[in-house]
Amino acid sequence: MGKEFLYHEIASRFASQIKNGVLIPGEKLPSVRMLCKEQGIGMNTAKRVFLELEAQSLISSKPQSGYFVTYSPLSRLPLPEVSQPSLVAKHREPNALIDKVYRSIGNPALTLFSIGAPAQELLPLAKLKKELVLATRNLEGGGTNYEALEGNVKLRRMVAQRSMGWGGNLHESDLITTSGGMDALSFCLMAIGKSGDTVAIESPCYPGILQLAISLGLKVLELPTHPVTGIDIDALEELVHLIDICLLVPNFNTPLGSCMPDESKARVVTLLATHQIPLIEDDVYGDLYFGEHRPKCCKSFDKDGNVLWCSSISKTLAPGFRVGWVAPGRYMEKLLKLKLVHTISSTSIVHEAVGNFLRTGRYEHHLRQLRRTLQENAQQYVQAIAAYFPEGTKISRPQGGLALWLELPKEIDTAILYDLAMKQQISFGPGRMFTLQNQFDNCMRLCIGLPWSEKLRLKLQTIGNLVKALQA
Amino acid sequence: MGKEFLYHEIASRFASQIKNGVLIPGEKLPSVRMLCKEQGIGMNTAKRVFLELEAQSLISSKPQSGYFVTYSPLSRLPLPEVSQPSLVAKHREPNALIDKVYRSIGNPALTLFSIGAPAQELLPLAKLKKELVLATRNLEGGGTNYEALEGNVKLRRMVAQRSMGWGGNLHESDLITTSGGMDALSFCLMAIGKSGDTVAIESPCYPGILQLAISLGLKVLELPTHPVTGIDIDALEELVHLIDICLLVPNFNTPLGSCMPDESKARVVTLLATHQIPLIEDDVYGDLYFGEHRPKCCKSFDKDGNVLWCSSISKTLAPGFRVGWVAPGRYMEKLLKLKLVHTISSTSIVHEAVGNFLRTGRYEHHLRQLRRTLQENAQQYVQAIAAYFPEGTKISRPQGGLALWLELPKEIDTAILYDLAMKQQISFGPGRMFTLQNQFDNCMRLCIGLPWSEKLRLKLQTIGNLVKALQA
Repeated sequence: MGKEFLYHEIASRFASQIKNGVLIPGEKLPSVRMLCKEQGIGMNTAKRVFLELEAQSLISSKPQSGYFVTYSPLSRLPLPEVSQPSLVAKHREPNALIDKVYRSIGNPALTLFSIGAPAQELLPLAKLKKELVLATRNLEGGGTNYEALEGNVKLRRMVAQRSMGWGGNLHESDLITTSGGMDALSFCLMAIGKSGDTVAIESPCYPGILQLAISLGLKVLELPTHPVTGIDIDALEELVHLIDICLLVPNFNTPLGSCMPDESKARVVTLLATHQIPLIEDDVYGDLYFGEHRPKCCKSFDKDGNVLWCSSISKTLAPGFRVGWVAPGRYMEKLLKLKLVHTISSTSIVHEAVGNFLRTGRYEHHLRQLRRTLQENAQQYVQAIAAYFPEGTKISRPQGGLALWLELPKEIDTAILYDLAMKQQISFGPGRMFTLQNQFDNCMRLCIGLPWSEKLRLKLQTIGNLVKALQA
Repeated sequence: MGKEFLYHEIASRFASQIKNGVLIPGEKLPSVRMLCKEQGIGMNTAKRVFLELEAQSLISSKPQSGYFVTYSPLSRLPLPEVSQPSLVAKHREPNALIDKVYRSIGNPALTLFSIGAPAQELLPLAKLKKELVLATRNLEGGGTNYEALEGNVKLRRMVAQRSMGWGGNLHESDLITTSGGMDALSFCLMAIGKSGDTVAIESPCYPGILQLAISLGLKVLELPTHPVTGIDIDALEELVHLIDICLLVPNFNTPLGSCMPDESKARVVTLLATHQIPLIEDDVYGDLYFGEHRPKCCKSFDKDGNVLWCSSISKTLAPGFRVGWVAPGRYMEKLLKLKLVHTISSTSIVHEAVGNFLRTGRYEHHLRQLRRTLQENAQQYVQAIAAYFPEGTKISRPQGGLALWLELPKEIDTAILYDLAMKQQISFGPGRMFTLQNQFDNCMRLCIGLPWSEKLRLKLQTIGNLVKALQA
């Protein structure tokens, strides 16, 4: 091999490692001397390798220090656009893809990029089981009795204590427990909305919220939403006279993962309070922040009980336990009545176990681990997507939560991609699941709650290859 | 004491023992000779005792056998009348008494004649706890995962097997699990009804059904209902063109405890199928029969999937577990979708434990005991009511279930009685809870799921005394 080709070949191998994320931003490359030794090449060839990589903007030199990786896979993966839904409220059946995708969830043969909850490998199973066994032994009547209507007091007390972490100041008497977070949202919408009312939401939006709103006879107004900062508040303000209820997931919503800045939260709360429009705040991802601090909740800016704050342990601890809660503000009486009418009582044994678990402090420890894992997963996914997906792919930059949102080249129909992927035992969320409108056909959600492995990388490669095949 | 008074005094004591149910129908009295010896009286006095009791229709003689008790406390407690509700469908707030009474349920200081579920002393707690611990240990992921949408397959299989007992022939694939029975009814009404539709029900009716129907925007048509045989089917037939949905509790409903005869069930199913009106059948009390055989369900006469059969373990095993199910016939797809939208998954650990418990055969053993206890309770209650309540009290004759329905003299307002009873730490169900109309003001429900004790007898005496005081 001539010298021309030799330096090129070595530079290509480095480039590939950088682009695939094997060598990550900030990592130091070998010195010129070391490279000569390792590869059995001369000084000039080694220097040409580094010059070539520098010319490709993959590395740069620091004086007296050597060469460092500067390229990030993200630098070729721009942010998706701010969504541009039609600003007319719709009442129509959510896309049939939703059912198709959700029903795949029970199939253990599939790689479920579609499941928006942490895999059980990421959960503190042994401790949870221990708490369940203890609760079974210690709870009066082994949990066979109905609970008091408000729900388990230990659980409510812990949720109230933890509200300090997001700028809240709840008391246990502000809270009602529910059978998971959707149950809480469902009661809130039933308490406030009547058939024909309009509910404003983020777009793209969690399909469960779309289905719930439509099943309750509501019209859905999808708001333009920025992938980093959340809904366009100017748009909300312009449309406010058309809106009866606002339902937002301000912290790390799925699929976008956007997080409204504090000042936006304050502004939305004031705007809605002025117009007497209740805000249902779904904070189910709030504890899954990748940064230093937990983001605040809209509820922390609420002065007159206009915000109904909902959350659960389904995204952090145990989806199958069905443990959620709501601080319904001035709708407390209505919510109590709805809980009585529709479910009477929570499953007391499981709520007791979770109440006790939260008191041990184990929860904070677990959350720290889970956040680290999810953040690392996000990086692994991004690197794999950068390596395997075609030019023109855009990707969200979630600072928390459980999902990545991809915008593929315009010609890709992710509903078709879904069927192809399923043949390879891969399930994900096609973009049309997340809207009632004709948008996001070329988008997809990938959930990051699975434990990272070489198998996942290969599955992402498979999706990337399918995308490329569809382009051809 | 003269002889005149002596025979009268002895006869009075016998009469009192018979009326209080200490001596029960069919029981043999002492012979004339024995009575002479026991009481130290002459033959003529002893004979006059028996003649006096016979004249009061309390005993009668059998040739060559002696005297037997023929009076039953029930013979002075006639059946309540067939209800005569207005036949115009109503949409109005259920009576505020409902909330008042239900919110008393968490108070351990109260004697809760108001709670329509078996007390924990009547439940197989040790076995249930064992199953919960086993399920926690053995279930994949300790129950932290979402279940398949249809719900736990062991549980569905056992419910399907047990359907043979009520004339059914279900397969596990006909069933969906829910978070208790109300959750099942709630999904059924949501699947079928839309705001403004009319649902026909029994009258008096379980308050939870009234609240649920009204909270979903439905109008409620209360049907005349016989305390033994259930709804007046002729009335249903006349009104059928005004009805969109029928929701019945054909077996031992609360509060009446009526049980529709098989031929009535068959007739209702055919009538409703002809008019394409879905029948939601709540069979939550069906296993609590006092007779030899479990009554059939309407579902057993269903040919075209028009009957949505709902039940749970809340009235037989563990109210606080929230385990129920529905066989929704041709509404299967709609029900699956509603479950997905509103709760996603059941609490898997508890459903697994109950599924396993039902497989052990322990459930049948427990049900036999529970039925015997409830039947004995019903007898004790009736005897106490006969002894302590005023003339003119009428009472239901439930052949199963968990409740007695009392019609007190017209002038008694059981809402006022309730407040008086609560001052004595007693809670029951005032009649107005069980209707949206102006009826049952002088009626009350007493639940019989508490373990019988002298204390309960005294509490019933207290209620009886309060009723008498209100009459004065």
